[in-house]
Amino acid sequence: MSTIVPPANPEDDPRVKAVFDDIRATRKSDFINNMWLWLAVDPALLERTWGEVKAVMATPSGLDPMTKELIYIAVSIANNCAYCIHSHTAAARAKGMTDSQYAELVTIVALAARTNHLATALQVPTDNAFDPMRATEDNQHALHLRQDRCRDRPAGRRPASPDCRHRLVRPVQSDRRGKRRRGGRNRH
Amino acid sequence: MSTIVPPANPEDDPRVKAVFDDIRATRKSDFINNMWLWLAVDPALLERTWGEVKAVMATPSGLDPMTKELIYIAVSIANNCAYCIHSHTAAARAKGMTDSQYAELVTIVALAARTNHLATALQVPTDNAFDPMRATEDNQHALHLRQDRCRDRPAGRRPASPDCRHRLVRPVQSDRRGKRRRGGRNRH
Amino acid sequence: MSTIVPPANPEDDPRVKAVFDDIRATRKSDFINNMWLWLAVDPALLERTWGEVKAVMATPSGLDPMTKELIYIAVSIANNCAYCIHSHTAAARAKGMTDSQYAELVTIVALAARTNHLATALQVPTDNAFDPMRATEDNQHALHLRQDRCRDRPAGRRPASPDCRHRLVRPVQSDRRGKRRRGGRNRH
Amino acid sequence: MSTIVPPANPEDDPRVKAVFDDIRATRKSDFINNMWLWLAVDPALLERTWGEVKAVMATPSGLDPMTKELIYIAVSIANNCAYCIHSHTAAARAKGMTDSQYAELVTIVALAARTNHLATALQVPTDNAFDPMRATEDNQHALHLRQDRCRDRPAGRRPASPDCRHRLVRPVQSDRRGKRRRGGRNRH
Amino acid sequence: MSTIVPPANPEDDPRVKAVFDDIRATRKSDFINNMWLWLAVDPALLERTWGEVKAVMATPSGLDPMTKELIYIAVSIANNCAYCIHSHTAAARAKGMTDSQYAELVTIVALAARTNHLATALQVPTDNAFDPMRATEDNQHALHLRQDRCRDRPAGRRPASPDCRHRLVRPVQSDRRGKRRRGGRNRH
Amino acid sequence: MSTIVPPANPEDDPRVKAVFDDIRATRKSDFINNMWLWLAVDPALLERTWGEVKAVMATPSGLDPMTKELIYIAVSIANNCAYCIHSHTAAARAKGMTDSQYAELVTIVALAARTNHLATALQVPTDNAFDPMRATEDNQHALHLRQDRCRDRPAGRRPASPDCRHRLVRPVQSDRRGKRRRGGRNRH
Repeated sequence: MSTIVPPANPEDDPRVKAVFDDIRATRKSDFINNMWLWLAVDPALLERTWGEVKAVMATPSGLDPMTKELIYIAVSIANNCAYCIHSHTAAARAKGMTDSQYAELVTIVALAARTNHLATALQVPTDNAFDPMRATEDNQHALHLRQDRCRDRPAGRRPASPDCRHRLVRPVQSDRRGKRRRGGRNRH
Repeated sequence: MSTIVPPANPEDDPRVKAVFDDIRATRKSDFINNMWLWLAVDPALLERTWGEVKAVMATPSGLDPMTKELIYIAVSIANNCAYCIHSHTAAARAKGMTDSQYAELVTIVALAARTNHLATALQVPTDNAFDPMRATEDNQHALHLRQDRCRDRPAGRRPASPDCRHRLVRPVQSDRRGKRRRGGRNRH
Repeated sequence: MSTIVPPANPEDDPRVKAVFDDIRATRKSDFINNMWLWLAVDPALLERTWGEVKAVMATPSGLDPMTKELIYIAVSIANNCAYCIHSHTAAARAKGMTDSQYAELVTIVALAARTNHLATALQVPTDNAFDPMRATEDNQHALHLRQDRCRDRPAGRRPASPDCRHRLVRPVQSDRRGKRRRGGRNRH
Repeated sequence: MSTIVPPANPEDDPRVKAVFDDIRATRKSDFINNMWLWLAVDPALLERTWGEVKAVMATPSGLDPMTKELIYIAVSIANNCAYCIHSHTAAARAKGMTDSQYAELVTIVALAARTNHLATALQVPTDNAFDPMRATEDNQHALHLRQDRCRDRPAGRRPASPDCRHRLVRPVQSDRRGKRRRGGRNRH
Repeated sequence: MSTIVPPANPEDDPRVKAVFDDIRATRKSDFINNMWLWLAVDPALLERTWGEVKAVMATPSGLDPMTKELIYIAVSIANNCAYCIHSHTAAARAKGMTDSQYAELVTIVALAARTNHLATALQVPTDNAFDPMRATEDNQHALHLRQDRCRDRPAGRRPASPDCRHRLVRPVQSDRRGKRRRGGRNRH
Repeated sequence: MSTIVPPANPEDDPRVKAVFDDIRATRKSDFINNMWLWLAVDPALLERTWGEVKAVMATPSGLDPMTKELIYIAVSIANNCAYCIHSHTAAARAKGMTDSQYAELVTIVALAARTNHLATALQVPTDNAFDPMRATEDNQHALHLRQDRCRDRPAGRRPASPDCRHRLVRPVQSDRRGKRRRGGRNRH
């Protein structure tokens, strides 16, 4: 049972037809799954939702297509959305997920749920070492934090790569006094 | 504030010390994060939890280490575990996650949350095409389901690869009548 | 499948019959939906639950009946309760929700889920400006905070309106030194 | 503690500046709350998120602005997003939510959580009467379903109002045999 | 930061004072924890909430007080309510929970979270054997279902014990044909 | 519909057979419920999951078997796992849960959900009195905290009972100056 009756002839609406045609072209398939039929009751919602799914999931990016589906499934399990679990499990298989990779995904999700509940139960305080605002070279070592590939290059020659434009982990700067300090929004 | 006072000298307990030593050796770091200090109140729980984290997250497998951390973060966000979000975001960075990959992860998680809530709101019925029990070659085409690399090999020469031992998607079998049917637990 | 067998003749119990009669009278309908049949296994639980539903949802108040149902649906979607989604979507329609309003509700719920997960993922710190304890006229301006209709009236002539009896946002008080300070529990 | 360091000078990026300028113009305020500062690490995510928030929350529609904020708060409570609870509670106050309306909102959210958990605990089966696919005039009566304002008008003279273009509850049609049947996607 | 400023002198309101006096008398303590101070902004909500907490948690019943607190903590962890985790963990300790029982509680909660996510991930179908509507003596054996202490007594001599008044698991009835059938709402 | 096809002959795999045999022996029943059939697609996951379920749920401990099942059901309701709700409700009945105890469990879960959402909605700050790190004899009295049965015994004669080995609530120590201070990890 669903809460609405999907439109009988959704493609009579030209906005819906345009989205459905784009779904078919993007996926190279005639199959329109129920999610899009149901969203067709509101063409604006359909357009915005498909627009974002296409931009995020069907456009080449820094994560490979199967990894993106694994993340999507993981969230859908944690949010307990049966429809989404089924549709994205099928999609991940279509993008190359093997049986053992799927078993591993499920294992990680269940392990995370377990430690999530342990940390929540005990209200474990977050270690300062995990705070990117306080990061020092020492705890970067302790935490095996990655070498920031942008940080050591001369300022004028920073590459245009998207990874380097924004530094989500604050880079360490040496000042004259030999003490390290960190650049940051509140310190400038 | 946490619900317990962690043990003052956890390594006085030899079972705790053994786990902490294994954490240090596995991670090649002296840093023991709060989760393990807090779990040290119950050595059996500490042993089982670390044992599973080590087996699943720190042992080479069919998913690369960073992908496993991305899945872990995704679940922790959906389950709203602040501690786990912080510890596994740091771990993913340590395993090579770039800033743009992290931004992409967060984008996918938020997109999944959006479609999760849409599907739940409308109670969209799951397409039969997503059911591995009903899978046919036709809808495998429609869904771009992967070629099962085990299915077409002669039965006696199946490889020992873990992917093929269990077929999570039921393989198609041709019978003499030219109709396709699927092997399965209830049909034998 | 449900976890219990509902009573065969629930109205044999006079406490159940009294609740069912009140449901019928309140709703002007003979229809008793399954929730109440199932709760009839425990008359005390039935009484308390219906009592609260009636007081909150079926009694005129400061929010109109349809708005109350929209809030109820939103929570039921986020909590993923299929039964509740169906029953309250039907109730909202009965109270005047149009198709486009329903589409809008679903859109807001999905948008909120998306930003909820974004804020949780990044652990965005809450702006001080949102804190009613720290509210000043300046950030009330910045935040477009409502004009508190009680605050400027002479103390002796405060109206009896429920909005003014409790001030959930702390009113600004002028003292002699021309600085503004806020009244509060810890300052008196 | 948050997982990233927000950009020190976000408006150096022209895409970020364009969004921030639009936020200020739309809200008629110079205040940029932390959510947008944090999202500025990924200008594409910032653009898409603000674009949707503006379209859904800051554009006149069939639900009034305060009602939309109440729905947003309700979802944020159920999803347990502290940041979102604070920012949208402040926004609802700015849009006219009184203290007693806020108390009522909170009461409904808590009541819904209670019945959500009851229905989930007992796995109460959904009444057929709630299914829009099976809706008949009789159970429309039983459920107090609204009079569909589009249904009785001559087909050729249907108004262009958005409510009538899509019928989320299937309209009843009389056929020659005097039996009522319902139009629908699978019956044509 | 909380969303409201609690009333400065809550007991100036006689309805609030009556509730606070009852909390003190029931708990034999002068301590009023924050939850009640915050709810005092809405005396009706305060009365209803305390009324239910007192009836359910502070009234002798079929579950002992500490077990009730363990259940409360478990739900609060799964719902990720930090306040509730802290207040009910303290209450459970006050009612006799030992450290090892607490460690066990946390272990069970985390184990349940893990299998919850596994069952959700795989969408494991529920066994018919778990359906009380289909229960037969055979699967009662298989499931170790309890002997229903009411079922075998002569109908006229059923005891007044609350356990027997409602049979949540349908009792087996023998008819003349030697076949067993089950009484039930739809069969009478 | 589930996401995988369970193995047709799971016990052909000796690791699966060993687990199934242990399930049958532990439960003294031939019935293997679907959870284990589905997990049999990954013998390592099956072994680890059953190993933990057996250790936690089927081994005598400080909580009685039925109480453990009540906690498990409560978490499964809050996490909305239908399979888990059904299997553990059946298990609790098998271990002696009466109908009225079940009704009480459901009542507590629903009450907790309500107060969980209230505390989250208002972002009620946690009372310092609930912090075991700050516990003093005075607030132990206020909170009715249990008498710690280990604390007053001479240090050299502490019993070996598991409750006393770890003190989750920090014991009070008298020093020479007559002030009380608490032992702890950061103070030594």
